[in-house]
Amino acid sequence: MESVLKLGIPKGSLETATVELFKKAGWQIGISSRSYFPTIDDDEIKCSLMRPQEMAKYVERGTIDVGIAGRDWVRENESDVFELCEMVYSKVSRRPARWVLVVNGDSKVQGPEDLRGATISTELVGFTKRYFAERNIPVNVEFSWGATEAKVVEGLCDAIVEVTETGSTIKANGLRIVSELMESVPVMIVNKAAWADPWRRAKIEQIATLLQSALRAEGMVGLKMNAPGDRVAAITEIIPSLNRPTVAHLHNSDWVSIESIMPEKEVRRIVPELLKLGAEGIVEYSLNKII
Amino acid sequence: MESVLKLGIPKGSLETATVELFKKAGWQIGISSRSYFPTIDDDEIKCSLMRPQEMAKYVERGTIDVGIAGRDWVRENESDVFELCEMVYSKVSRRPARWVLVVNGDSKVQGPEDLRGATISTELVGFTKRYFAERNIPVNVEFSWGATEAKVVEGLCDAIVEVTETGSTIKANGLRIVSELMESVPVMIVNKAAWADPWRRAKIEQIATLLQSALRAEGMVGLKMNAPGDRVAAITEIIPSLNRPTVAHLHNSDWVSIESIMPEKEVRRIVPELLKLGAEGIVEYSLNKII
Amino acid sequence: MESVLKLGIPKGSLETATVELFKKAGWQIGISSRSYFPTIDDDEIKCSLMRPQEMAKYVERGTIDVGIAGRDWVRENESDVFELCEMVYSKVSRRPARWVLVVNGDSKVQGPEDLRGATISTELVGFTKRYFAERNIPVNVEFSWGATEAKVVEGLCDAIVEVTETGSTIKANGLRIVSELMESVPVMIVNKAAWADPWRRAKIEQIATLLQSALRAEGMVGLKMNAPGDRVAAITEIIPSLNRPTVAHLHNSDWVSIESIMPEKEVRRIVPELLKLGAEGIVEYSLNKII
Amino acid sequence: MESVLKLGIPKGSLETATVELFKKAGWQIGISSRSYFPTIDDDEIKCSLMRPQEMAKYVERGTIDVGIAGRDWVRENESDVFELCEMVYSKVSRRPARWVLVVNGDSKVQGPEDLRGATISTELVGFTKRYFAERNIPVNVEFSWGATEAKVVEGLCDAIVEVTETGSTIKANGLRIVSELMESVPVMIVNKAAWADPWRRAKIEQIATLLQSALRAEGMVGLKMNAPGDRVAAITEIIPSLNRPTVAHLHNSDWVSIESIMPEKEVRRIVPELLKLGAEGIVEYSLNKII
Amino acid sequence: MESVLKLGIPKGSLETATVELFKKAGWQIGISSRSYFPTIDDDEIKCSLMRPQEMAKYVERGTIDVGIAGRDWVRENESDVFELCEMVYSKVSRRPARWVLVVNGDSKVQGPEDLRGATISTELVGFTKRYFAERNIPVNVEFSWGATEAKVVEGLCDAIVEVTETGSTIKANGLRIVSELMESVPVMIVNKAAWADPWRRAKIEQIATLLQSALRAEGMVGLKMNAPGDRVAAITEIIPSLNRPTVAHLHNSDWVSIESIMPEKEVRRIVPELLKLGAEGIVEYSLNKII
Amino acid sequence: MESVLKLGIPKGSLETATVELFKKAGWQIGISSRSYFPTIDDDEIKCSLMRPQEMAKYVERGTIDVGIAGRDWVRENESDVFELCEMVYSKVSRRPARWVLVVNGDSKVQGPEDLRGATISTELVGFTKRYFAERNIPVNVEFSWGATEAKVVEGLCDAIVEVTETGSTIKANGLRIVSELMESVPVMIVNKAAWADPWRRAKIEQIATLLQSALRAEGMVGLKMNAPGDRVAAITEIIPSLNRPTVAHLHNSDWVSIESIMPEKEVRRIVPELLKLGAEGIVEYSLNKII
Repeated sequence: MESVLKLGIPKGSLETATVELFKKAGWQIGISSRSYFPTIDDDEIKCSLMRPQEMAKYVERGTIDVGIAGRDWVRENESDVFELCEMVYSKVSRRPARWVLVVNGDSKVQGPEDLRGATISTELVGFTKRYFAERNIPVNVEFSWGATEAKVVEGLCDAIVEVTETGSTIKANGLRIVSELMESVPVMIVNKAAWADPWRRAKIEQIATLLQSALRAEGMVGLKMNAPGDRVAAITEIIPSLNRPTVAHLHNSDWVSIESIMPEKEVRRIVPELLKLGAEGIVEYSLNKII
Repeated sequence: MESVLKLGIPKGSLETATVELFKKAGWQIGISSRSYFPTIDDDEIKCSLMRPQEMAKYVERGTIDVGIAGRDWVRENESDVFELCEMVYSKVSRRPARWVLVVNGDSKVQGPEDLRGATISTELVGFTKRYFAERNIPVNVEFSWGATEAKVVEGLCDAIVEVTETGSTIKANGLRIVSELMESVPVMIVNKAAWADPWRRAKIEQIATLLQSALRAEGMVGLKMNAPGDRVAAITEIIPSLNRPTVAHLHNSDWVSIESIMPEKEVRRIVPELLKLGAEGIVEYSLNKII
Repeated sequence: MESVLKLGIPKGSLETATVELFKKAGWQIGISSRSYFPTIDDDEIKCSLMRPQEMAKYVERGTIDVGIAGRDWVRENESDVFELCEMVYSKVSRRPARWVLVVNGDSKVQGPEDLRGATISTELVGFTKRYFAERNIPVNVEFSWGATEAKVVEGLCDAIVEVTETGSTIKANGLRIVSELMESVPVMIVNKAAWADPWRRAKIEQIATLLQSALRAEGMVGLKMNAPGDRVAAITEIIPSLNRPTVAHLHNSDWVSIESIMPEKEVRRIVPELLKLGAEGIVEYSLNKII
Repeated sequence: MESVLKLGIPKGSLETATVELFKKAGWQIGISSRSYFPTIDDDEIKCSLMRPQEMAKYVERGTIDVGIAGRDWVRENESDVFELCEMVYSKVSRRPARWVLVVNGDSKVQGPEDLRGATISTELVGFTKRYFAERNIPVNVEFSWGATEAKVVEGLCDAIVEVTETGSTIKANGLRIVSELMESVPVMIVNKAAWADPWRRAKIEQIATLLQSALRAEGMVGLKMNAPGDRVAAITEIIPSLNRPTVAHLHNSDWVSIESIMPEKEVRRIVPELLKLGAEGIVEYSLNKII
Repeated sequence: MESVLKLGIPKGSLETATVELFKKAGWQIGISSRSYFPTIDDDEIKCSLMRPQEMAKYVERGTIDVGIAGRDWVRENESDVFELCEMVYSKVSRRPARWVLVVNGDSKVQGPEDLRGATISTELVGFTKRYFAERNIPVNVEFSWGATEAKVVEGLCDAIVEVTETGSTIKANGLRIVSELMESVPVMIVNKAAWADPWRRAKIEQIATLLQSALRAEGMVGLKMNAPGDRVAAITEIIPSLNRPTVAHLHNSDWVSIESIMPEKEVRRIVPELLKLGAEGIVEYSLNKII
Repeated sequence: MESVLKLGIPKGSLETATVELFKKAGWQIGISSRSYFPTIDDDEIKCSLMRPQEMAKYVERGTIDVGIAGRDWVRENESDVFELCEMVYSKVSRRPARWVLVVNGDSKVQGPEDLRGATISTELVGFTKRYFAERNIPVNVEFSWGATEAKVVEGLCDAIVEVTETGSTIKANGLRIVSELMESVPVMIVNKAAWADPWRRAKIEQIATLLQSALRAEGMVGLKMNAPGDRVAAITEIIPSLNRPTVAHLHNSDWVSIESIMPEKEVRRIVPELLKLGAEGIVEYSLNKII
């Protein structure tokens, strides 16, 4: 068996964010408009660009060993793949994408059960059919080629199942969310035979570890300060504890340096307290990875 | 029955060209990113924006009375609609779009019959399945979410059925066209009940006549000249005859003015001859419509 | 007195449309980002770029002889100038700009009289003060530096007087129009002493005539056709009559050519009738000016 | 009293820089073109977008508790607010904005006193009137709607009072600066009642401290090196001393690590000296905040 | 000898204007970024894109039969080609490009003769050397790779020979034009053997005639009016006479229609006079070509 | 001798990268489209923008003391300058530019010796002539004004000498690389008299040291971790050793902190091993300079 891992990069909305995440994790991926095979500076990996809708199918077949795609499309396809981990890209979105059931603002529909016999447009036909079938609600689900919101506005269907993050576009069009059907985040999916193979599994774990390290570093910062030695206990108590703070004696002095990693948001909260406790020379710096 | 005709405007690649064509034909259509119902300056028409892939379905159901879409998508859906006329938009393309069967440059496939048992990716699943079924060639047709060419380059399938105009992108990717399966031009399709209704049929015919007039005027020009009266026969003989040239006597003179409509390309050919025949003051002007 | 007319070109929203209108009327105006004096290909005119808000002031003082600006700003300043004519630029807008009184969607205000003691934000302070003073409604009018709609949304004032064309932005922000205070179109305003001077008056009239000719040609087209001589009366009767149709005998024939100028919108209406009356070779063409 | 601080964000030239500064200080502000209330990831703050010209007025009235705006507009309005601190945004400009008195290049005016009876155009009418009144120089001050420089070029006024940073645009237009009337930097202004309220004052101080920390970090870097223990005194002497350098013993060695914060510009000066003193492994890194 | 004419299209500043001019003349040229051979809808022509600097060399060698380039580069190369005609593209420029001798604003140089022994930078080395040699002024001419103006500003040379249209960039950089060395317009240049060949000569003449017709139509318009028969003489007298006006009797009337081609600029002058002479229904229209 | 160093900044493809590199090294260079002299925040340096093709000439003459340009153009000019160091800008390119000899894909040429008597187009005329002369191969070398690849495609010459990085454009045009003639990287070149002058030499060395420090920091990161004291030896053994790792005791503990600088690419390799050795709290951070 050759020592090359076949990796699927999702084309479209996750594409740039995925390339940036690999860059933070230590791999340079080069996407050229002329080639369907992105370059990567690791001889043990071969990349392919793929639609997220089709990623799970190709992972299942073993065309690729591992890929990244939204969980929605993995479930739509009901592919038999192993979901290794979630990839919560903060750059793309703070909150997961949600697939919601949507009707016109003046519709009387209050829940899925009010849609018996209705026509529903969606890009996620398989998932939607199963969702209503499990609840014994007979509906007519039609594939939508896009601009799905327009269909319910224009009266071309009774309801839609559509993806949203904040719901603001839905409200702006005078539509109403009836209920949420599924939350979706990007996931790393693995071919089951690849996972059983030691070399490929180790390589996949290396990639996953470093991607997670890079994701963890987003929104986290390092904070350094000097303090009198007798304040160490008081200071370390108020510092949020992702890892133990690193405390070191200073040269020819009874002061110490204290250094810790914390969410950037905590900094604004604890700075006034640190100052009261006598900390000096407080500086904050950025991190690339937290392993 | 209300006196409003429901008209479908194709969203996407034909959208701008359709709006421009209606403008030339005498209707102002206003498309706003905030609304799914384009405005039109005719109280007898109501517009809706629709995906070309779904146009035929909605015309068949009577959701709209008439729409414009590529013939490929009308046939894909096998919808029961009346195809009134072709709309050969010169701005969009000089040649019709062609759906072609494409394989890798180094494939041994020479014709559809060599694809027995193969996997074929395409956006046009229904048409492709029927095409191979009619020829008794068993194949596995998969829906492609886009970037279809990549699939055959990346080895994800054995062949694709894809749309092209010049074939240049296909060649640039090292692929080869095996055969052409269908040519497609935009067509105006009409709901059968709407066509049976006198008011709606008259309105549809008015629109079709004026759209055709505007299309006909593209690439055509008017040419005017003065000439001695005894050269009228010689000159009118060499003028391409879309309509009879208009010949009028000039005031206090034995000269005439001659005016004719012709393809712009003919002008470059006949000008040297007109000069030899004694024509003077030759001027060329543009036309908006030729009815 | 020198033979140079000083002309004010409005900077901002009317700027491009004004330059285009002069171009259609036969003058090339060149605006450079490096110079405040646009060039013009007429030695008898000198242009200056000016804010529409300040145009009337400078016309009144005689700094310039003639200028173009919205009627709103002419009235705001109560300048003593002569308003020669309206300039209804179809390219800029189909409908005149309207200054409207606007409140929050949930406000109880039904008319100006409900705003006693209220704070009103507007860019048009002078006009607004006079409007309420004439109605004996005491209000506090504040100058708004822009983003006026935000002020009533954010609760910074009770109402605003703001300009709109369609009202759609107002509705999109959840605001409500209480009443319309003034309609405004671009007008050509003239310094009174300049109007009394024969040379300057003639030059101003030349400009006004040709600008009006260019405006009149927008939306109008020429229609030409050939017809049997005995149908002239029937055909000319249905042709909209801006000017009398031009009818000429054709050479060696009892047919005539008929040519007329009409609104483009009429063409779609009369074409079916012309065909019934035996007209042939109907062509439509564009016009630059109709004098 | 509710625990929400009302914060005004300046719309326009400072807008992007303000959002970036809050980001560095630890707050995410989200500005949407559809809403006048930017979001912020702190439940104790509510943001409003406001014109800098109007910021002081709304702070004075208590419509908002605290805002950021140029000192020029605070002074123009003579609002009764408390100016907490300056915010010298290095990204926007290295030097403060200056309001200058400007005349045509060939004018004989040498100082404000030469402008008796003159007409002066400016956006800063109140300040300009007071400036000349304090010096007993009678002038006619007119509000300029923008493009103020054009007015003195075109001869529409005798002088202008205009804002500039480098004076280069003024020179490029052939104008001349007579004198500088005021320097302006962004300032944080506070409503007096809000400042008297302990909760709001503490919150305002937290924001101010962290904004200042982020500003201080711009242009500063951290420098780390290892050195023989006997060179500590010599090295720390040449290091610019924002905070005392942090010196720590290295493991099993008589070397120390030395780390200090300094202006990036100093680095290029001291590196040759550090090398001479035996420092090794010198690295420079960036900082987010220096508190 | 094959019946295909080899035509050189100038790459760069004239490229778009050349393609547009051929379009007006009746040929569609398609330039693709992927191909060096533009397509043209005429089987008798084959296009190549070439640098204007190299056009004359390839015409002289017979690599191409005919090409368009600035006269400056034709003269620089001293190529032995036949210059058929000038092509004054109004879209590119109203005035011909001028090659001028330029020095620093504070230089004492008053004429070429003051540059004895000086270093001169230019892109037009051959022409410049000959110019000074003919005048027996010894100078050192250096090839400039571009940004030539910078060289005299930065003191890298004593003078430059540079191309300009209005001289405004030169003035803006504080430089001064000493004298004009050459005017340049685009010219059509022909290989001498091609010109001697009847078929190629006829084809070249056809192209030249139609390009000239299209150029002539720029800035010209058609003017039509009706008038009483007894005013024909008076009206035709004031109409600028590019061609004789076309005058035709109107049907059942003693009125005539008068139609003429004239420069658009004349229209604004004669319209008041036409109105006084009783003309009615005056309309102006555009022209594509005037042959 | 004045204490100002004259520095040449290369205009064009290296311009932005050079400015960014100086910024990382600690100097702000400001390039304005209106000035040929970029500003720099160091009173001891004066910048000039120059074409890379001309840089060596001006360094040799002493017009500037030091400059940055591609080694190709330094060699083309055979200038007598001192090449201080290479500047391998990772942002511009991973690999050096290569000047290659290129022919049509179907040419029979296999090496330079097959080009006897051929015509070769290139921008690098001097170098190409010397290259062939040294090998006693007579060829005709012509200066190409650009679009050199087109010349061999269009058959205007037999071969070209052109610059490339990946060769992909050459392949895309159906051309073939015969051989590589020269590799080129940006170099810093110094005037020999300037290098002999102590003040200027020290200043040049300061600049070179800091530019190299900034370049060295690209692709390098800092890695920090805590570890049990008895693992120091094992851990430091696997850490790539640009500088010795910095190891410090932690306060009241037998753990140590370990910090090291390494290529970012090594991180992905050693992280699994560090975890096995018991390292905790591993974080990676960026560096600006490594001196």
